[in-house]
Amino acid sequence: MLGSGNRPPLTSTPCNNIGFLQKNNSLDDKSRIVSSLKERQSSNLLGCENSERECRFRRTETDFSNLFARDLLPAKNGEEQTMQFLLEVVDILLNYVKKTFDRSTKVLDFHHPHQLLEGMEGFNLELSDQPESLEQILVDCRDSLKYGVRTGHPRFFNQLSSGLDIIGLAGEWLTSTANTNMFTYEIAPVFVLMEQLTLKKMREMIGWPGGDGDGIFSPGGAISNMYSVMAARYKYFPEVKTKGMAAAPKLLLFTSEHSHYSIKKAGAALGFGTENVILLKSDERGRVIPADLEAKILDAKQKGHVPMFVNATAGTTVYGAFDPIQEIADICEKYNLWLHVDAAWGGGLLMSRKHRHKLNGIERANSVTWNPHKMMGVLLQCSAILVREKGILQGCNQMCAGYLFQQDKQYDISYDTGDKAIQCGRHVDIFKFWLMWKAKGTIGFEQQINKCLELSEYLYTKIKNRDGYQMVFDGEASHHWLADPPFL
Amino acid sequence: MLGSGNRPPLTSTPCNNIGFLQKNNSLDDKSRIVSSLKERQSSNLLGCENSERECRFRRTETDFSNLFARDLLPAKNGEEQTMQFLLEVVDILLNYVKKTFDRSTKVLDFHHPHQLLEGMEGFNLELSDQPESLEQILVDCRDSLKYGVRTGHPRFFNQLSSGLDIIGLAGEWLTSTANTNMFTYEIAPVFVLMEQLTLKKMREMIGWPGGDGDGIFSPGGAISNMYSVMAARYKYFPEVKTKGMAAAPKLLLFTSEHSHYSIKKAGAALGFGTENVILLKSDERGRVIPADLEAKILDAKQKGHVPMFVNATAGTTVYGAFDPIQEIADICEKYNLWLHVDAAWGGGLLMSRKHRHKLNGIERANSVTWNPHKMMGVLLQCSAILVREKGILQGCNQMCAGYLFQQDKQYDISYDTGDKAIQCGRHVDIFKFWLMWKAKGTIGFEQQINKCLELSEYLYTKIKNRDGYQMVFDGEASHHWLADPPFL
Repeated sequence: MLGSGNRPPLTSTPCNNIGFLQKNNSLDDKSRIVSSLKERQSSNLLGCENSERECRFRRTETDFSNLFARDLLPAKNGEEQTMQFLLEVVDILLNYVKKTFDRSTKVLDFHHPHQLLEGMEGFNLELSDQPESLEQILVDCRDSLKYGVRTGHPRFFNQLSSGLDIIGLAGEWLTSTANTNMFTYEIAPVFVLMEQLTLKKMREMIGWPGGDGDGIFSPGGAISNMYSVMAARYKYFPEVKTKGMAAAPKLLLFTSEHSHYSIKKAGAALGFGTENVILLKSDERGRVIPADLEAKILDAKQKGHVPMFVNATAGTTVYGAFDPIQEIADICEKYNLWLHVDAAWGGGLLMSRKHRHKLNGIERANSVTWNPHKMMGVLLQCSAILVREKGILQGCNQMCAGYLFQQDKQYDISYDTGDKAIQCGRHVDIFKFWLMWKAKGTIGFEQQINKCLELSEYLYTKIKNRDGYQMVFDGEASHHWLADPPFL
Repeated sequence: MLGSGNRPPLTSTPCNNIGFLQKNNSLDDKSRIVSSLKERQSSNLLGCENSERECRFRRTETDFSNLFARDLLPAKNGEEQTMQFLLEVVDILLNYVKKTFDRSTKVLDFHHPHQLLEGMEGFNLELSDQPESLEQILVDCRDSLKYGVRTGHPRFFNQLSSGLDIIGLAGEWLTSTANTNMFTYEIAPVFVLMEQLTLKKMREMIGWPGGDGDGIFSPGGAISNMYSVMAARYKYFPEVKTKGMAAAPKLLLFTSEHSHYSIKKAGAALGFGTENVILLKSDERGRVIPADLEAKILDAKQKGHVPMFVNATAGTTVYGAFDPIQEIADICEKYNLWLHVDAAWGGGLLMSRKHRHKLNGIERANSVTWNPHKMMGVLLQCSAILVREKGILQGCNQMCAGYLFQQDKQYDISYDTGDKAIQCGRHVDIFKFWLMWKAKGTIGFEQQINKCLELSEYLYTKIKNRDGYQMVFDGEASHHWLADPPFL
């Protein structure tokens, strides 16, 4: 077992500051726990490292039974221990949150895989047959946060500019505590309704009349983009669902050479083939050239192939470019193609009256990918696929599993979302976003986004005027890295 | 706006117990916050409901600026407020956890969608332009937990028998606080290594020599099953990746009539067509009949079709049946078909020396779906797809996006998992599971699972001997509902 050779022998040295988890501990109310939490908070966490390291290697006979008491709550003592343990965890998390806001700790050292596998300062990743003590689990939590996240990454540049969103964090803590699922109304009534209301607001922001249409939250932009291709295929060739791709002619998907690779992934996965994902030329700023789209459509038609789907990107991954949606929409209408807008990154700009013009024409799209977990700072994962026409997602994906989606429920079964999804169980991604929207209001998001773009402009000027730097193209980028990491 | 008509007018009645978030509050250290947390914990939460309801409608001038102070930490005051707010949230969560363990509150009333949309006791789901106060946000959190989760659902039967796993909960809180992503080693070094080590352990439990092979965590069993079909297709017809399904003959997938509907969904999505997902007959206990598989393979071959993939289920959704994997594996070997075992539900039994025989033959599978978020009680979402042959996931899904997966990194790039996935960004699903395994050890999981199956046996006897009940089939079920909800 890697790393285990590096562990010092187990000792039974008592560790005063987290010794309360032992079985012989006779605490009978929470006040002492809370005082202990307070004491530890007021002392410097980093200063405790030595004694923590001692605890790391301690394992007592009692821990094992404690673990099972915990599993089999509500044994009276078990509940007490549970609360104590969770308060310890909270202590670790709050300290981490504090550190997140400390700019001086932003960039951590890089550790090679072998260093971590060999056990950094006793942090042992290996799993074993025997349980670890709860003390050790707390140390694992601390170490995981310490080594687990490379704060030099763009996701942290984002937090540097706008802060780890505390409301979103609270929402995610709540979601994991609720530990429920999204496939039917009855299993998560409030979250299903939140999703519905929020998707409607998003469709209103897109500009679809009355916020009508459909949509669902998915586990990321790549999957959302995949949904869009599936929806398009179902719209034009519904028989593919039952008969497979053999029932359709050679179908083509069009997307910019600067677009995200998930369109190509969808082409491979869904049986189109990557060769049938046609890459379009872009101008020097990374925006697709509409004339190239039309030329390639005509060329394909001449060969007897069937152009079906066009993806326009609102905020490309590297340049932050916005494809000219209006002109692309004109071509899609002319040739009756499905228009998808991948606004995974740039969708957040729809919240800003000042910047939403960059997505002009998005209201003409048949479907839109929009990841609140990017530009809007919602915690990962939070991605929406929005579809203008109702019923397509359902038609495309429903399998009518009798054990879940009974037709004779005591409520309007259109609230059951499971048959729209390619998933069955679905994580509750909506709550944190809904809660942030509640807390900021639409105008709060608008201000946040305007601020991000101001920072981007500032950075642009700084770099432009700096010796030894040369701009990739003239003029400002439409979008910017600092606002959010461009990963789907 | 729905529901807003029902809201009482805003008042400025002060609310002592959560009034500390006001701007004119001059707290300067954490001790008072913690004491306040303590006081509120020692009083009965439910007893506070009236005053909470008062707060619900209070909105002060100061809240708005507070919100933005929070967004732009580390303003001195902002940090203080952040900690206070998070402590409040923790208070709500701890109270919820306590209630989760109280059997008398297990089943909540059912509320129709229109009741919730109209605003239950002032709980307003609508989003608006203006921000809400932080006090209101806390009330929203409380209400979301109160109405958000139907505790009558099987997921709660599970928690009733084995308790909401507190270690897993702590892991999930930590994951959301870290708020990172899984696509490359450099962005989440520790979590990437944890995933690798844990998948290896899972492959060892399956019985693949040396734990060799590949795998990845996905957003649920349906997606894991989809991966298995993609991997099989890539193995036998790699040209489909580039040329699409047109490059392959008519390919058939085989699965039991009792299997999960996600196999059919995969057939539809990936371009096989649901008609080419052939359903196999089951015996009276829901286990697939191997002779029917062989007959259908021969029939298909005679028609010139190409049988490619067989799914055997280890723990079916409704009956909890285990397909006879050995006999199915014999047939797969005979005809050179890919064998997938959907052990989403039953995979947990591999941890139990007493019960793992139900999955005998699983070591002969080419791929396995195993959801720790089911039988093993890990919080949603946590699902693994495991593949015996190395390189297939990568070959199948890689698009070599230059902006992420550079070939000249300063570490072994085989640690970058992004190109194995159909996703780009990927939620950290591993940590909670790894932490639970650390805390329980393999033998802890074994005990937990044995206990679940004992409970199931007990329930079986109870029902069997109860007047007015009739068993669907004679003999005990191989598996049981109480252990975990059978949803993917």
